[in-house]
Amino acid sequence: MERLPGFRDFYPEPLPHSDVWSCDARQYVFDKWRTMARRYGFREYDGPPLEPLELFTTKSGDEIVRQLYNFTDKGDRPVAMRPEMTPTLARMAAAHERAYKKPFKWFAIPQLFRYEKQQRGRLREHFQFNADVIGEPEAAADAELIALVIDTLRSLGLTADDFWVRLSSRRAWQDFYANANGDPTRAYEFYQAVDKLERDKPEEIDQKLRAAGTSLEAVTRFIEAGEPTAELKQIVDDLGARGLGDYVKVDYRVIRGLAYYTGPVFEAFDRKGEFRAIAGGGRYDNLIKLISGGKVDLPALGFGMGDVVLLELLKSRGLLPKFDGGLDAFGLVEDEALRPQTLALIQRLRGAGFAVDYALTKAKSDKQFKRAQDLGAKHTLRLERNEAGALLAKIRNLSTRKESAVTPDEAEAALRSS
Amino acid sequence: MERLPGFRDFYPEPLPHSDVWSCDARQYVFDKWRTMARRYGFREYDGPPLEPLELFTTKSGDEIVRQLYNFTDKGDRPVAMRPEMTPTLARMAAAHERAYKKPFKWFAIPQLFRYEKQQRGRLREHFQFNADVIGEPEAAADAELIALVIDTLRSLGLTADDFWVRLSSRRAWQDFYANANGDPTRAYEFYQAVDKLERDKPEEIDQKLRAAGTSLEAVTRFIEAGEPTAELKQIVDDLGARGLGDYVKVDYRVIRGLAYYTGPVFEAFDRKGEFRAIAGGGRYDNLIKLISGGKVDLPALGFGMGDVVLLELLKSRGLLPKFDGGLDAFGLVEDEALRPQTLALIQRLRGAGFAVDYALTKAKSDKQFKRAQDLGAKHTLRLERNEAGALLAKIRNLSTRKESAVTPDEAEAALRSS
Repeated sequence: MERLPGFRDFYPEPLPHSDVWSCDARQYVFDKWRTMARRYGFREYDGPPLEPLELFTTKSGDEIVRQLYNFTDKGDRPVAMRPEMTPTLARMAAAHERAYKKPFKWFAIPQLFRYEKQQRGRLREHFQFNADVIGEPEAAADAELIALVIDTLRSLGLTADDFWVRLSSRRAWQDFYANANGDPTRAYEFYQAVDKLERDKPEEIDQKLRAAGTSLEAVTRFIEAGEPTAELKQIVDDLGARGLGDYVKVDYRVIRGLAYYTGPVFEAFDRKGEFRAIAGGGRYDNLIKLISGGKVDLPALGFGMGDVVLLELLKSRGLLPKFDGGLDAFGLVEDEALRPQTLALIQRLRGAGFAVDYALTKAKSDKQFKRAQDLGAKHTLRLERNEAGALLAKIRNLSTRKESAVTPDEAEAALRSS
Repeated sequence: MERLPGFRDFYPEPLPHSDVWSCDARQYVFDKWRTMARRYGFREYDGPPLEPLELFTTKSGDEIVRQLYNFTDKGDRPVAMRPEMTPTLARMAAAHERAYKKPFKWFAIPQLFRYEKQQRGRLREHFQFNADVIGEPEAAADAELIALVIDTLRSLGLTADDFWVRLSSRRAWQDFYANANGDPTRAYEFYQAVDKLERDKPEEIDQKLRAAGTSLEAVTRFIEAGEPTAELKQIVDDLGARGLGDYVKVDYRVIRGLAYYTGPVFEAFDRKGEFRAIAGGGRYDNLIKLISGGKVDLPALGFGMGDVVLLELLKSRGLLPKFDGGLDAFGLVEDEALRPQTLALIQRLRGAGFAVDYALTKAKSDKQFKRAQDLGAKHTLRLERNEAGALLAKIRNLSTRKESAVTPDEAEAALRSS
């Protein structure tokens, strides 16, 4: 039986097949995400992977809706597996915003889903680090959020040589469009066309832009002028004060595809331009109001950073560690009469925080030792009796090959210092 | 807009409403699960939350199939959101078993789903700690797995006064049923009836048991005799050698509802009997063969421990810590001219591993200080210039109220020692 197309199996390393993903690498990235978010004062939240369909249909723009993994549940409700986290966050924030002092900083690591019929090879799920600031209208919050993107990528070993954040402004593009007397009902198509500047053919883009009331030439001129708004300048200065100036550049080619952005927007890219965006986000000051039916009006901003591009990038840069089970010791049982005492000692060592595995059943010495090596254990551990009949624990460091013999009471200390 | 019935929102603490769940408590439990699994030498894996429907329909018994959250996807595939992890594990293990030396020990923390039309108040999703041992037929593996259940619960502060593991044997029940000349085609109904002994009415149970060819009286006599099989005795002795004897008791009332169990089975319960099972599992030596269409034949065993009962139990026993953002420091900006320097210092402290938040925008001193308190920060951090114009970092411990004044270079050490 096969898994569904577009879904991933995550196995422990070393990986058995090129068709599967590393659960170790995934958890390594999740840990870095979580650690940096907490260091920045973000608190974790989560919502359901399944939401009412309407939470997504009018808020995010056509593109995401076309790709929804939606169906009707057994209670006849139109539902969708979440394609992005922001609408859920907006729903949750609106429901209980009074309980949290503004601004509040939240993060989540949801699995997200999409269903595209046409592209069979493409993944239908991914994990995404989401961090958002709710209730702060000033650009200082945008800078803080971008700093979190940068420091998260740095914590994975990426440097200013590997990536940069392209900073832009949806508001600047809104002003451009208004000045060009663009058709307000076609604003979303306009953003979509600009968003695809670097992917679609110039003639197609130009056609779409002209339909919206402007042109590729006007858009290109605006991008090339590249005059930072006061808001963007403030963000760049703020990041500069943190020593992160090298990581950010104003670049109006970025506009973000989703409909709901209202202010500064940004995307992180690898500098070589080999991969799709590593992360992207921006300000969405109207979304919470929209989702709460006008009941709650709070400015907000956030970003998403997916696991797929990031893992590909880390792999290509040699930045993923080799993973094993991290065993501190493997217990050998050479004398079955000492199995109960070995179990007692292992219990004690695990209780003290060591990762310990052992020979579950009777086996030859060399087979047990081979298993300790296969599992990447740092030490072997073996009980024996001395001539006086007292128990001795023999602890061997498998890299230095040094062995020490201690009493079982001393085994914990010996393991710690070996 | 509301979330779907039966799904949970997880918020940061303090909780805004009794209707939502704590993401902090959830992550606290996940961390304990993960830590203990690794300490026992288990490796993490994960599969898709959505699987082909047929992965579940014939393997798990009617009960789980009736409650499936299933639908037809846009590619006309019958699919189901996973109701349990074991079939996915069996699929994954069968696909790549050759790459892993037997036995292998794996764990996962999946979210699982079910859909019951009749019981509207009941949850439709939960998270479950799953740990399995693949490729080991001997009872030593069963003991190791049960020890992991016990130590995991102990790591959450639960003791032998709080819970116990009831150990039984599906094989002993199979033998009982064969000796009673039970109808082999009704074996599943027989297990189901025994599984419900403590929940359904005696007359109903008796009727079902008689339909299968035995009786409540015969079943009760078997349970009361309670003679441990050699296999169960071995498990009890093994756990005894670890000092975990107080946590386990042979009790044939346990049989487990799922169809696929073949050997020892067990369930962990709170001793007061206030809650449903905290965890349950057992041996399923035929499932991998079944799921791989006969290609791979490996003995296996595992357990599941859900988050819902566990969190309720921990709460009722006062074993959940109070959670806050864990901020080491909150940066006050009293002189806006020093904001860039404050940002630089915060960047440095975060880089050194401290969790630091700060006043994002200009605000009055007392308001900033109030925010530091609201966020539960351990220290405040404030830059000022001395008469000579040099920068001073003032670090105040908010519980001792002691303040120290150091150079920005010394701030990291001061924070660490305060």
